[in-house]
Amino acid sequence: MSHKRNVYLQMISLTEARQVVDQAFSRGTLLDTETVPTPDAVGRVLAEPVTARFSSPNFHAAAMDGIAVAAASTFGAHESRPKVLQVGGDAFFVNTGHVMPEATDAVIMIEQVQVLDEHRVQIEAPAFPWQHVRKMGEDIVATELLFPRHHRVTPYCVGALLSAGLFDVAVLRRPKVIIIPTGSELVDWHATPPENIRPGQIIESNSYMLSAMVAETGGCCERREKLGDDPQAIQEAVRSAVKDETAQAVFITGGSSAGSEDFARMAIAALGDVLVHGVTMMPGKPVIVGRVMNKPVFGIPGYPVSAIMAFEQLVRPLMAGWLGQPESRRPQIDVTPTRKIASKLGVEEFVRVKIGRVGNDMVATSLPRGAGQITSITEADGIIRIPAHSEGIRADGPVKAELLRPLEHIDRTMVIVGSHDNTLDLLADELRAQGSHLSLSSSHVGSMGGLMAVKRGVCHVAGSHLLDESDGSYNVSYIRKYLAGMDVNLVHLVMRDQGLMVPPGNPKGIQGLADLANEGVRLINRQGGSGTRILLDYRLKQLGLAPDRIDGYFNEEFTHMAVAVAVLSGAADVGLGIYAAARALGLDFIPVVTEQYDLIIPALHFASPAIASFLKVVRSDGFKQRVQALGGYHTERTGEVLV
Amino acid sequence: MSHKRNVYLQMISLTEARQVVDQAFSRGTLLDTETVPTPDAVGRVLAEPVTARFSSPNFHAAAMDGIAVAAASTFGAHESRPKVLQVGGDAFFVNTGHVMPEATDAVIMIEQVQVLDEHRVQIEAPAFPWQHVRKMGEDIVATELLFPRHHRVTPYCVGALLSAGLFDVAVLRRPKVIIIPTGSELVDWHATPPENIRPGQIIESNSYMLSAMVAETGGCCERREKLGDDPQAIQEAVRSAVKDETAQAVFITGGSSAGSEDFARMAIAALGDVLVHGVTMMPGKPVIVGRVMNKPVFGIPGYPVSAIMAFEQLVRPLMAGWLGQPESRRPQIDVTPTRKIASKLGVEEFVRVKIGRVGNDMVATSLPRGAGQITSITEADGIIRIPAHSEGIRADGPVKAELLRPLEHIDRTMVIVGSHDNTLDLLADELRAQGSHLSLSSSHVGSMGGLMAVKRGVCHVAGSHLLDESDGSYNVSYIRKYLAGMDVNLVHLVMRDQGLMVPPGNPKGIQGLADLANEGVRLINRQGGSGTRILLDYRLKQLGLAPDRIDGYFNEEFTHMAVAVAVLSGAADVGLGIYAAARALGLDFIPVVTEQYDLIIPALHFASPAIASFLKVVRSDGFKQRVQALGGYHTERTGEVLV
Repeated sequence: MSHKRNVYLQMISLTEARQVVDQAFSRGTLLDTETVPTPDAVGRVLAEPVTARFSSPNFHAAAMDGIAVAAASTFGAHESRPKVLQVGGDAFFVNTGHVMPEATDAVIMIEQVQVLDEHRVQIEAPAFPWQHVRKMGEDIVATELLFPRHHRVTPYCVGALLSAGLFDVAVLRRPKVIIIPTGSELVDWHATPPENIRPGQIIESNSYMLSAMVAETGGCCERREKLGDDPQAIQEAVRSAVKDETAQAVFITGGSSAGSEDFARMAIAALGDVLVHGVTMMPGKPVIVGRVMNKPVFGIPGYPVSAIMAFEQLVRPLMAGWLGQPESRRPQIDVTPTRKIASKLGVEEFVRVKIGRVGNDMVATSLPRGAGQITSITEADGIIRIPAHSEGIRADGPVKAELLRPLEHIDRTMVIVGSHDNTLDLLADELRAQGSHLSLSSSHVGSMGGLMAVKRGVCHVAGSHLLDESDGSYNVSYIRKYLAGMDVNLVHLVMRDQGLMVPPGNPKGIQGLADLANEGVRLINRQGGSGTRILLDYRLKQLGLAPDRIDGYFNEEFTHMAVAVAVLSGAADVGLGIYAAARALGLDFIPVVTEQYDLIIPALHFASPAIASFLKVVRSDGFKQRVQALGGYHTERTGEVLV
Repeated sequence: MSHKRNVYLQMISLTEARQVVDQAFSRGTLLDTETVPTPDAVGRVLAEPVTARFSSPNFHAAAMDGIAVAAASTFGAHESRPKVLQVGGDAFFVNTGHVMPEATDAVIMIEQVQVLDEHRVQIEAPAFPWQHVRKMGEDIVATELLFPRHHRVTPYCVGALLSAGLFDVAVLRRPKVIIIPTGSELVDWHATPPENIRPGQIIESNSYMLSAMVAETGGCCERREKLGDDPQAIQEAVRSAVKDETAQAVFITGGSSAGSEDFARMAIAALGDVLVHGVTMMPGKPVIVGRVMNKPVFGIPGYPVSAIMAFEQLVRPLMAGWLGQPESRRPQIDVTPTRKIASKLGVEEFVRVKIGRVGNDMVATSLPRGAGQITSITEADGIIRIPAHSEGIRADGPVKAELLRPLEHIDRTMVIVGSHDNTLDLLADELRAQGSHLSLSSSHVGSMGGLMAVKRGVCHVAGSHLLDESDGSYNVSYIRKYLAGMDVNLVHLVMRDQGLMVPPGNPKGIQGLADLANEGVRLINRQGGSGTRILLDYRLKQLGLAPDRIDGYFNEEFTHMAVAVAVLSGAADVGLGIYAAARALGLDFIPVVTEQYDLIIPALHFASPAIASFLKVVRSDGFKQRVQALGGYHTERTGEVLV
């Protein structure tokens, strides 16, 4: 195969890419060995089989307080015919742990010994050989194998190794990765005060995240100077990195701008071979696998979730192999998706999901799919893999999910689906503050979405503020209509002020809902089915204002904060939302209504200990005070059971 | 409650002891907060809720290369009626990642743009608002909660925190434990060359093992000078340790000699309260819980498995609570014990077991029960808890086992039951050397025990060297008799020399089996059902030598190495065993016979990939060479399938 030839110019499947990596590098890099003191070896991998130097114990030891004897000398002793033994002759006083005196092979407990005088003791029963003796080698026999090579040292192993006289051990050196961050839009967090970061700049975080992931895999990283989109500089950096004999691999991490990968590919192609460029997986598609001077050089995509997938799918198994470890697989469980998840044919997709145990079901709700959304994986409990040949998965059938958190964590997670409110975040933290180990997992699908989630049995709690236009009541009539026949409870959470959010100073001079139709005013709306949208539509109808007269009416966001961001960023001039969101982003606020936000809880869950401790926190002064501090909230009836 | 009163003088149950610890200390110690750079926070616990400082992205960004436009300005464009836009006026060239120019809200991909000249571009279709734009706050919205307090920071979190402008975070300080090792028989490994360690001395390993376990739990340790059994010195050390304001707990670790716990108890009682002394659990019974100046002082027993249980059951949950974490529970699975396990009524017992997946069953074999046997936990795959009210568990029913290793590790474990041979250890290591991820789990129950394990379907492989006295053949006739109707394969492993092991120089002048009856010669025998015992009995019968003429005939050990240790330690003068064991411990060896050692493999498993890769290693030159290097082995037919 000629140097510099690009072996794969087409995208290949993940399976193929893994084979390419495996064939190219899995036998290539044998890690050196280093010797470390045993207590420092925890987490390391033994380079050689370890055999015991000492036996443990290394002597026959008394296992009781009493007298050590030769069992044979006691045979025949009986209540009716006690035997007298000479202290220092055929009986020796010993305490637990003492070395057994020569020619003795049994201990008689002190309670069963009658001391006649300084020199003589009497026994009334014989000892059998080796009674109450901890025999030499009982635990460990010198020369025997303690651990085979490639055993990973645990805290327990430290005890065994030291006891066996192994005060240091040979371990495999940690594989070292050199990381070269690239991208002109990147800034260094340690070199840039936060207030100096300008729009268009992105904080370089991938190298730190990848370092932590490499460390978790048993390796270590060296981070090189961040580079701009400068092909020559990148090539030089790669050349220098592969020459480093202490490093086994190189990462070129891209920024999220166009071109980044091209520079990585160009650098690798100039110095060696590009083996893979593009894998039919999502996120992670633009990953590059190169070989320079027989070392793997990975082009790691800039979007963080792409970077994670590229590392976990292609690099981690390779590193595990170098360390003599099998690839660690995450535990899998069956989950039921709460919605259909469509996926592109020909691409293997890693869908991040929240998982909750609701009743007897493990339900999974998909998180945003974008590769740029790091929170889609920090918030995820699991990953559903949709194979390349599938167009997606249905909402009914069980599918496999790989777990990112222990199942016990998921079992302590309360699934809240429905309308979004900022106090839910506060509640998530206040639960911890009050010593609860409950986690909240909230999905923002609007009040009607929450009602439907209750109906389908896929949540523990639904947040809702659905206004009944006919009588001004909230939620109750909707429950009656949409959850007919279901046994649910309704708990009041907060009253909250809804209003128009406008940029500071209110440049378009908006006074109320009627001004939404003004020339040059662009609205950002909430999605259909959200309580805020229902409220807006109701008020617009009262005002006789047709939606098509409002610029931006059909642009939708899913949360109050997203609406606030749209106004702050200038994407829109006004949006309807809660005071807390406006205040958080420093927007002006024109109150429209104070509305009621409640929690719908299926009776099935209402009696559970989790809901009980959840409601205890809802009703606590600590929670109410923090809610009031947000502004725009009223907590007089917080925690009351309405239905 | 008066100072210095011993609240519990009686042993209490583990449940009660946990309650005592919880009530006395779980609210007492609030950890301080420290601020660390975000990349260093992995594994730490957030002290406060963390809200985003920046949005991510902090600007509307082009998500494609092309032109940025105001979508409204493109409405009406059509193939039949293209629109011309002015570059720099209503169209702006952008690359992926660029900031969207003011007043634009959509990107048209470059492929769909016709460049007319330097100043004008033409489009044939309208853009819809926000197409190919990554909106500000798409991932993270400034001011929103990223993580609640007590969230444990993962590598992924590092990416989210840095992106959100959080370059350092407040985390809980690691709880610190001061460890005071005590016991006059203890020696320090770092102060004593291995060759200077004398019988009766024990290497102090518990403090290092406990330090590693504390670190794993999120804390750190400071080890104080080791003390002898000196009540005054121990009391002074405890007094000084509890005064250390940076420490939250103190461990007095005992030696394994009698008296150690008493000194710990005396020191605590002199300075404060002994809350618990003795818990009805095994191992771990002598644990002490004390309170001095409101700090917990634990008397940790000296036997290593007792120390582990005391820590895991009483200290770890407390530390987890201080760190705002729930107690982590090990995953549990159903296992079938291979034998009945008896247990003492009134004591909760933690039985360490090896677990293997054999066919459809997870089978569990109990390991030695002694608290002094650290290998009983380093070799264990799981723990079966036998409640205090139970006298043991039966061999047939499934019971719960807590897993000490991941299930996937257990799934890669081959269960070998039967006769013991040193080449099995070598095989365990050679598998790793040849890149296999198989682990071997061998239980030494003798050749007949192995046959029975095959019959009951609780092993993958049985090692056997059963001699048929009638024709001198090995194993085949036993299989025919005891495994009638079962489909098994027989693979030859090694020929090996069995002989009499005697101390160096052969002080009793033993020439052969006939000398076992000599005056003053003490035999150490193997257990009934072992191939070596059958061989001995056969030869004794040939010689016409009655067992009761042989001193020590009824003293039994379970492995060749244990027999060799008995001879080495002077507990016996002679034992029958393999050359490799004699050589390992430097004993003299008088050959008696060369015998055949084979592996019985149920046909059910024979075709499995695991057995295939196992046999590949058995047949490899690498394995054979290492076997020959042991001495006393012959590998001419190693790996041949006999049946």
